[in-house]
Amino acid sequence: MRVLVSEVGPRDGLQSLSRTMPTADKIHWIQALAAAGLQEIEVGSFVNPKLLPQMADTAEVVRAARLLPGLTVVALAPNLRGAQAAMQAGAHKVTIPVSASQAHNMANVRMTCEESIEAVRRICEYRDSLPAGQRAEIEVGIASAFGCTREGVVSEDWVMDMAVRLAEAGAHSVGLSDSVGLGNPAQVRRMCARLRQAIGERAGGVHLHNTRGQGLANVVAALDAGVTTIDASQGGIGGCPYAPGATGNIVTEDLVYLLESMGHDTGIDIEALLRARQVLAQALPGEALYGHVPDAGVGPAFRYADPARVYAGPVVAGCAMEGAV
Amino acid sequence: MRVLVSEVGPRDGLQSLSRTMPTADKIHWIQALAAAGLQEIEVGSFVNPKLLPQMADTAEVVRAARLLPGLTVVALAPNLRGAQAAMQAGAHKVTIPVSASQAHNMANVRMTCEESIEAVRRICEYRDSLPAGQRAEIEVGIASAFGCTREGVVSEDWVMDMAVRLAEAGAHSVGLSDSVGLGNPAQVRRMCARLRQAIGERAGGVHLHNTRGQGLANVVAALDAGVTTIDASQGGIGGCPYAPGATGNIVTEDLVYLLESMGHDTGIDIEALLRARQVLAQALPGEALYGHVPDAGVGPAFRYADPARVYAGPVVAGCAMEGAV
Repeated sequence: MRVLVSEVGPRDGLQSLSRTMPTADKIHWIQALAAAGLQEIEVGSFVNPKLLPQMADTAEVVRAARLLPGLTVVALAPNLRGAQAAMQAGAHKVTIPVSASQAHNMANVRMTCEESIEAVRRICEYRDSLPAGQRAEIEVGIASAFGCTREGVVSEDWVMDMAVRLAEAGAHSVGLSDSVGLGNPAQVRRMCARLRQAIGERAGGVHLHNTRGQGLANVVAALDAGVTTIDASQGGIGGCPYAPGATGNIVTEDLVYLLESMGHDTGIDIEALLRARQVLAQALPGEALYGHVPDAGVGPAFRYADPARVYAGPVVAGCAMEGAV
Repeated sequence: MRVLVSEVGPRDGLQSLSRTMPTADKIHWIQALAAAGLQEIEVGSFVNPKLLPQMADTAEVVRAARLLPGLTVVALAPNLRGAQAAMQAGAHKVTIPVSASQAHNMANVRMTCEESIEAVRRICEYRDSLPAGQRAEIEVGIASAFGCTREGVVSEDWVMDMAVRLAEAGAHSVGLSDSVGLGNPAQVRRMCARLRQAIGERAGGVHLHNTRGQGLANVVAALDAGVTTIDASQGGIGGCPYAPGATGNIVTEDLVYLLESMGHDTGIDIEALLRARQVLAQALPGEALYGHVPDAGVGPAFRYADPARVYAGPVVAGCAMEGAV
C-alpha cells in the first residue's frame, strides 16, 4: 500500500516554539524535506501575526515551496481571511482546523463549532469563485476528535455529524486530529472506519500526537481502517499551544521506518530524511528533537517496502544530533 | 479481553544497570508492583554471579516474592543448573532464553541453538522428576525472533521450527522476543499468528523492546493476533546487555494505559503503579526512567476497561519523578 506522510513540522512544530525560525532556514529545511521524498508539507499558517509571529512569513515560505517540483504545499488557515491569503500566496491545499470540542475551538480559533463549519462553507464558496488555476484543495482536520483536555470525552456521534456537515459545506477531505494525544488504537480504528462510512472518499488522514506514547500504536490502527495519509513532524516538534499538556507530534523519522518496515511504500529516503533533521537541528540550536530511529539506526534487518530501493546508510548507530533524545 | 502484563523490570531492567540494587530495595519495589495489581513478575535470574553480580541475590528475592498472595514469581535461567536453582528457591515459573540467532545465542548463553533446545529438554525432564508441589512451569522466550543485530534478518520458518522443537522438548509455553527492537507490526502480527498455528495453546506471550520506538505499535499487532501475555518493564529500564544498540523495554505504565484504554482489562491500578515507580526512582537515584503517561497523566477521557473500576488520580500532570523524561 502507498501511504502519504504529510510533514507538518514547519507549521505545527515551529508555531509552538517561542523563537521564530528565520525564513531562509525554513526554506532550507523544507527543501531538504522535499529532497528526502516528502510529497506534502504544511509549510505555515495564515493567522494573526500578533498572536503567532513565528508564522508571519508564511506567504513567502509558500512561494518558495511552490518552486519545488512535485511538492503539495499546504498552509493552515482558521478562517476566510486566512484562507484567502493562503490561496493568494499559491498554496495547493488549505487545511482548516475545526475542533469537535466547543471549548477547544473557542480557545483555538474564537468560534463555536457551528461558526467554524459556516466559515468552511464560505471558504469553499470563495474557492469556487476563483479561476480554475487558483483554486486550492480545502481540507479540514477535526481537532480533539478523540477527546479534549477541557471537555474530557468527546461524542463520537458528534464528530461524525460534524464530518458530514463539513463535507456538505464543500471540504474536499475531512480528517481526524488527536490534538492532545488522548486517542487509543481501538477508538482510532473504529472512528476512522466510521468516518469512511460517513463521508466515503472525502475521509481524510489522521493527525496523531504522541503525548502519552501511543502515537505509532494509533497509526497501526488507522492503517487497519484504510487510512492512507498520516501527519507527522520531523523530530516530533510541535503540539497545539492552546491545549495544556500537549507535547509532541509523532516523529516523521520513526513513522517512515514503521511504514516501510510494514511494507507500505512512502517514497521517502531515510538517509536524506536524517540529513533534513540535521538542517533542522542546526537551525534550532539547543532545541530538543525526538525520535528513536535517528539514535538507534534502522537496524540490519531493515528493508524498504519497494524492493527496488536499497538502504545503504548506517544500520545501528544513527547520527548523533544536538538535542536528540 | 483480559491481558496479562508480565513485569520484567526486576530482572531485565536491573541486570542491565552497572550498579546493583540492594536486596531490600528489590523486594520493596516488587511488593509495590504486586500491590498495584501486577500478577506476574520476573524477579531475577539464576546466572553466574561473576557475570551478573546484580542478580546474585535472586534466590532470596524469589523467596520474598513468594510471600505475596496471588503473584506468579518468575525467574530466568539459561541452563539446567540455573533452572534447578530457580525451582529450589521456589519460582513458580522458569523462563529460559533461547535465541533464534546462533551468534546471539552463543554470545548470550554460550550454546548453539540446538544445545539450548537440548538444555530445555533436560530442564523439563528434571522438572518432571520433582514432587508435584515443586514443579515450576517452564517457559521459553525465543530471542532475536524478529531479527538480530549480528545476523540481520532471521528466518521466520526457522523460528517456527524452533518453537515446535521447544514445545516437543516439554516447554509449557514458547513466546517471541524482539531482543533488539527490530520487529514491525506486520511481522509481529504474522509471526504471532503462525506461532499459534504451530504450537496451539503452548503459544506464549511477546517480549518487545522499544529500541526504534515501535514497541506499542507492535503490541497492537500482537493483540490482533490473539496474544494475551505481554512483557514490560517499569520505567522502560533494561534491554539485553549483549546486544549492541539495544535500549529500553516497553514501559509498563504506557502499556497498561494502552491496554485499559483499548478495553483490555489488566487488573492493574495506574495510581498504585505510579507509586511503585516512585519506589523504583528512589532506589535508583539519577537513573533515567522512561514513559509518557507518568509525565502527561492519563488525561480526562481515560476510563478503565472494567467499568466497575474508577480512576480518581491526577489526569493531566503526573508525578514528576527524578530522571523521568
